Amino acid sequence: MKALVYKGPGKKAWEEVPNPVIKESTDVIVKMVATTICGTDLHILKGDVPEVEIGRILGHEGIGEITEIGSGVTQLAVGDRVILSCVSSCGRCSNCRQGLYSHCLDPEGVAGIGWIFGYMIDGTQAEYVRVPFAENSVYKLPAGVTESEGILLSDILPTGFEIGVQYGHVQPGDVVAVIGSGPVGLSAVMSARLYGPSKIIAIDLDKSRLARAKDFGATDIVNSGDEDWKQQVLAMTDGHGVDVAIEAVGVPETFTMATVIVRPGGSVANIGVHGKSVDLALNELWIKNIDISMGLVNTNTLAMLLKLVAEHKLPAESFVTHTFSFDQIMEAYEVFGNASKHDALKVLIH
Amino acid sequence: MKALVYKGPGKKAWEEVPNPVIKESTDVIVKMVATTICGTDLHILKGDVPEVEIGRILGHEGIGEITEIGSGVTQLAVGDRVILSCVSSCGRCSNCRQGLYSHCLDPEGVAGIGWIFGYMIDGTQAEYVRVPFAENSVYKLPAGVTESEGILLSDILPTGFEIGVQYGHVQPGDVVAVIGSGPVGLSAVMSARLYGPSKIIAIDLDKSRLARAKDFGATDIVNSGDEDWKQQVLAMTDGHGVDVAIEAVGVPETFTMATVIVRPGGSVANIGVHGKSVDLALNELWIKNIDISMGLVNTNTLAMLLKLVAEHKLPAESFVTHTFSFDQIMEAYEVFGNASKHDALKVLIH
Amino acid sequence: MKALVYKGPGKKAWEEVPNPVIKESTDVIVKMVATTICGTDLHILKGDVPEVEIGRILGHEGIGEITEIGSGVTQLAVGDRVILSCVSSCGRCSNCRQGLYSHCLDPEGVAGIGWIFGYMIDGTQAEYVRVPFAENSVYKLPAGVTESEGILLSDILPTGFEIGVQYGHVQPGDVVAVIGSGPVGLSAVMSARLYGPSKIIAIDLDKSRLARAKDFGATDIVNSGDEDWKQQVLAMTDGHGVDVAIEAVGVPETFTMATVIVRPGGSVANIGVHGKSVDLALNELWIKNIDISMGLVNTNTLAMLLKLVAEHKLPAESFVTHTFSFDQIMEAYEVFGNASKHDALKVLIH
Amino acid sequence: MKALVYKGPGKKAWEEVPNPVIKESTDVIVKMVATTICGTDLHILKGDVPEVEIGRILGHEGIGEITEIGSGVTQLAVGDRVILSCVSSCGRCSNCRQGLYSHCLDPEGVAGIGWIFGYMIDGTQAEYVRVPFAENSVYKLPAGVTESEGILLSDILPTGFEIGVQYGHVQPGDVVAVIGSGPVGLSAVMSARLYGPSKIIAIDLDKSRLARAKDFGATDIVNSGDEDWKQQVLAMTDGHGVDVAIEAVGVPETFTMATVIVRPGGSVANIGVHGKSVDLALNELWIKNIDISMGLVNTNTLAMLLKLVAEHKLPAESFVTHTFSFDQIMEAYEVFGNASKHDALKVLIH
Repeated sequence: MKALVYKGPGKKAWEEVPNPVIKESTDVIVKMVATTICGTDLHILKGDVPEVEIGRILGHEGIGEITEIGSGVTQLAVGDRVILSCVSSCGRCSNCRQGLYSHCLDPEGVAGIGWIFGYMIDGTQAEYVRVPFAENSVYKLPAGVTESEGILLSDILPTGFEIGVQYGHVQPGDVVAVIGSGPVGLSAVMSARLYGPSKIIAIDLDKSRLARAKDFGATDIVNSGDEDWKQQVLAMTDGHGVDVAIEAVGVPETFTMATVIVRPGGSVANIGVHGKSVDLALNELWIKNIDISMGLVNTNTLAMLLKLVAEHKLPAESFVTHTFSFDQIMEAYEVFGNASKHDALKVLIH
Repeated sequence: MKALVYKGPGKKAWEEVPNPVIKESTDVIVKMVATTICGTDLHILKGDVPEVEIGRILGHEGIGEITEIGSGVTQLAVGDRVILSCVSSCGRCSNCRQGLYSHCLDPEGVAGIGWIFGYMIDGTQAEYVRVPFAENSVYKLPAGVTESEGILLSDILPTGFEIGVQYGHVQPGDVVAVIGSGPVGLSAVMSARLYGPSKIIAIDLDKSRLARAKDFGATDIVNSGDEDWKQQVLAMTDGHGVDVAIEAVGVPETFTMATVIVRPGGSVANIGVHGKSVDLALNELWIKNIDISMGLVNTNTLAMLLKLVAEHKLPAESFVTHTFSFDQIMEAYEVFGNASKHDALKVLIH
Repeated sequence: MKALVYKGPGKKAWEEVPNPVIKESTDVIVKMVATTICGTDLHILKGDVPEVEIGRILGHEGIGEITEIGSGVTQLAVGDRVILSCVSSCGRCSNCRQGLYSHCLDPEGVAGIGWIFGYMIDGTQAEYVRVPFAENSVYKLPAGVTESEGILLSDILPTGFEIGVQYGHVQPGDVVAVIGSGPVGLSAVMSARLYGPSKIIAIDLDKSRLARAKDFGATDIVNSGDEDWKQQVLAMTDGHGVDVAIEAVGVPETFTMATVIVRPGGSVANIGVHGKSVDLALNELWIKNIDISMGLVNTNTLAMLLKLVAEHKLPAESFVTHTFSFDQIMEAYEVFGNASKHDALKVLIH
Repeated sequence: MKALVYKGPGKKAWEEVPNPVIKESTDVIVKMVATTICGTDLHILKGDVPEVEIGRILGHEGIGEITEIGSGVTQLAVGDRVILSCVSSCGRCSNCRQGLYSHCLDPEGVAGIGWIFGYMIDGTQAEYVRVPFAENSVYKLPAGVTESEGILLSDILPTGFEIGVQYGHVQPGDVVAVIGSGPVGLSAVMSARLYGPSKIIAIDLDKSRLARAKDFGATDIVNSGDEDWKQQVLAMTDGHGVDVAIEAVGVPETFTMATVIVRPGGSVANIGVHGKSVDLALNELWIKNIDISMGLVNTNTLAMLLKLVAEHKLPAESFVTHTFSFDQIMEAYEVFGNASKHDALKVLIH
């Protein structure tokens, strides 16, 4: 089969590789119908994630059709069209039973834990992929959900909702600020509406992203390049700060922004993937009665979000800005890697 | 009357001052029966809290008898023996209605907010004190509760419980670590038992404090001076870390200790008052699905904790190690200021 | 002044009565600008509520302007335009501190508890009304909120939201059924949307009410006069029942309907005011892992809902179907008392 | 092998039957080491549960050793000593993923749902038993846990805790009443302590049971045969009722008792298995802001409770009053069937 293979820092190829095979009784093999590219893939390609071995097939998002099932699989069948969760989990360990799939303990060690696709095992930017612990890691695609919608359920929509909105404890009437209007930030903007906030403020440096944020449900926008950006945000509240500040960028500056606009009693929810430590002003914050959360998506809300997408309650279709065939995947990488130039959000490869 | 007056950095005096008078219709005047000293008082005396004016009467904890009530006070009477909350709050603003008394908005500005005793207004180390918003800020002392017990309800017992145990989401079966075995840390140790944890690990550098922690309910102790302290803690868990790590010291090192022993999916609850910012390893923690909380006590659990103390469900009497009369208050400061030398925990001044 | 006075079963009069006066330091006097009629008023008039004394002024909803304040009132001023909560509460007792205003313990006994307007004390269908515990019982009317909107905040909108939606634990993705499409049922329909359900099914016997339910946010409607009404509801779920069944009628039959359509693990929230006991099939339900809630509104979400109305996030204006002046109040009663004939929902009297 | 077989109403036999065999890839076979009898077994024997077929092996509690595993079982091994949950669940369906194991949807229909042992499939009063969905339905027995302790984890300890204490929302400081001091009621008494209540009131008609309740942690006892039993209970509260009333009998009278002693804002948790419907005084309760819960145990707290038992935080050993060998099982039934005469609580058969 053909697959997108990591060839070392800065290098990748769409090349012929052996087809995957069933290794464990709980595995299935999926023929990929659609996949996409995530910012993490770009990080790996730059060489920022040295534990990724040369030869690894990248990608952790996708939709496909089951072509083979392991002997222990009873609830899935060949021919099922499924969405792959970006997180693999056994479903039986103490963490999985709490819904903490991202920290699956996998006591038998058959497959590693949590996020492993395109990282510790071969991923989804390929014609076929082996899916470990399949019964807990794939979800049947309902009729009427398009590929452009379904592809978002693998990672970014649950990430924005679980790690941004739910960890941020958004409540009806809240003022919510989302810092960063990339795909994950916009997932948080869109899914925050499920808890009835009074305002969703999108904050970014990029004017065209901010304009687009309104299409995803932002009620207000603030350009963080403005000198008075903080005053603009506070003016959208009762003066005491936002109830929930969601960080969706991953650099120290944006994390600190979240801590300075949150109100006493409020929440900071970090979604961003950080490469550096940050300076936390505990000398000012200790008295502020806030909580700061962070984490990797569990995708334990995937089924619920999928139901809302299927019923057209979440306008997920607007994320995909560019579409490619599998053999145009190098081109897809070029567009996604220069998202700003191409005004790209998510690319669909099918 | 006599009172303990701040005379500038390093200086204090027990001297004659004018008696307090009712200023607002919601005030009461209380004749102090017992008070105590808090670590914060020592910070103020060192000059670390420059917003405290020279001439300020110190102290924010105490028990007393009401001698006068304002015209708007209907639920308290002269002669009532009451515990004073360290936090003053109007009870009516949007924050107070959420139980967030420490961030009372006090829309009329008559009294400042939250913690003001011995800070923004005259405090409780005096023969009399004016108590603003009295109906929301004092609690009747039940029969059978001693002064040594009651004095803890003003601040440290609710602080350990609300900011440590409740913000840390302690659940039945949890392994809880409390870093720091001073009065507030031991309050967290003692009140953590209210949520049925399987283990409460006290962590400190001081052997005699650790020994005492066992009397307050610690099931295990670890000396953080040991090189392998972290391994000792992890060995008391299933190997993945503690469910809840409570910081009760207030320096960067102990905060970092909390973040390295908490398990994925667990909670860090900061109680310590910090004078410096801390380096937060978000590059390692972003993936760990933890939450970090912090804040000033609201005392909205004061009445509940008082009920448990009155029914001998919380052995609060063991906190007071030294007792003084009001005119021995300078001696009390000497003992509390050198707690380690005197093996002191809380001092009772009555 | 003029007021609507209860003259015994079946009798009422719009007649001259003495103006109310301040009795307690926490009272205010309000000149009514708008009021409305509630189903409860009709019950009282029928004589169903014998504890209501002859001579009582009816009504517990309304908007007005403060004309006089008690000596203990510091956060309100003459001239403030306010919404009156249907529930009077001291804000300081142990129940009020939990937000359980409907069961205010009022330790001084100055005003009775909870719902007292138009029941134990004179109500709001009058030119002036005395409001006890005013600081905890009135809310300033924001600019831009109309009388037709504001009048709903006194009772029905918080009732639908707190007792239906919140007590029913509505979560994103849920299928919610609301039995009864009167004003309170429609309040539940409208405010259920604040928690992102996938479906809101309105169930009623009346076709025109069902048609209107769609305007308030119902995604589906079922006529409970149909023989297969239950099958229709289950077909709108995955076959196992609704996540939340809200009862908004108040008769045994509709309560039982709620218990037969709720799924295992789901919630039944009773809003209806019941005059009879009901037969609860605990022999079938004990195994079903459901919870059944009930209660009187606390209005502790009034401020939050008011904010959403002010920001046009809740289309509250559509409840008022008929408008009258105060001296047309007898006519207003005729219309509201025959709501079905007049296709009336809420009447505004101003 | 030998097993206790249901031979029709009033008839049972300890007789030779075929050994069980693996049917599904997720099954294991367990050699029983210890089992016990539950009140439900007596109901079945009386013929109250007609869906139980003649020939069914009874029993749903027990400890055993795995002797054979299905091909899909990766996390268990032959020789593992395990506790069997009374509830069988696939762990993968939407209900199981919410922890609602008692309503497992088992989409493949291989094993029925939830409680099936000794009911829909052969049970644990036998030398061997087939366990469906074993990885989600058995728990390894830790070293140091005795048979008398472990046997309680199959059903009654989780039932008292989940359906009584957790569904009843017990909080620190609460006054909790438990109606019925049989094994399940005493499980609720004992495990209520995990949430730090101020009082646990045991209510029963039987003096010797009430005396024993104190050994399990009841702080107060009330004989419900006393004419003033209700006044006695209210006198143990602040006069407004208990925070949580747990029903552990299963007849209309005791359910009604729970509803009349619960305070406004409190909870009624029904554990009892009811054979009749009950009259619910919704005409009085609609205004009381209470919730009423009920359900079958999920055993999703089994692992946590087992940890506490292993660490001697829950004195589970005191439940077993009589011990028998497997071939004395008929005698064990006689003792348990006449528990009051023998002063029996739980019988251990090993």
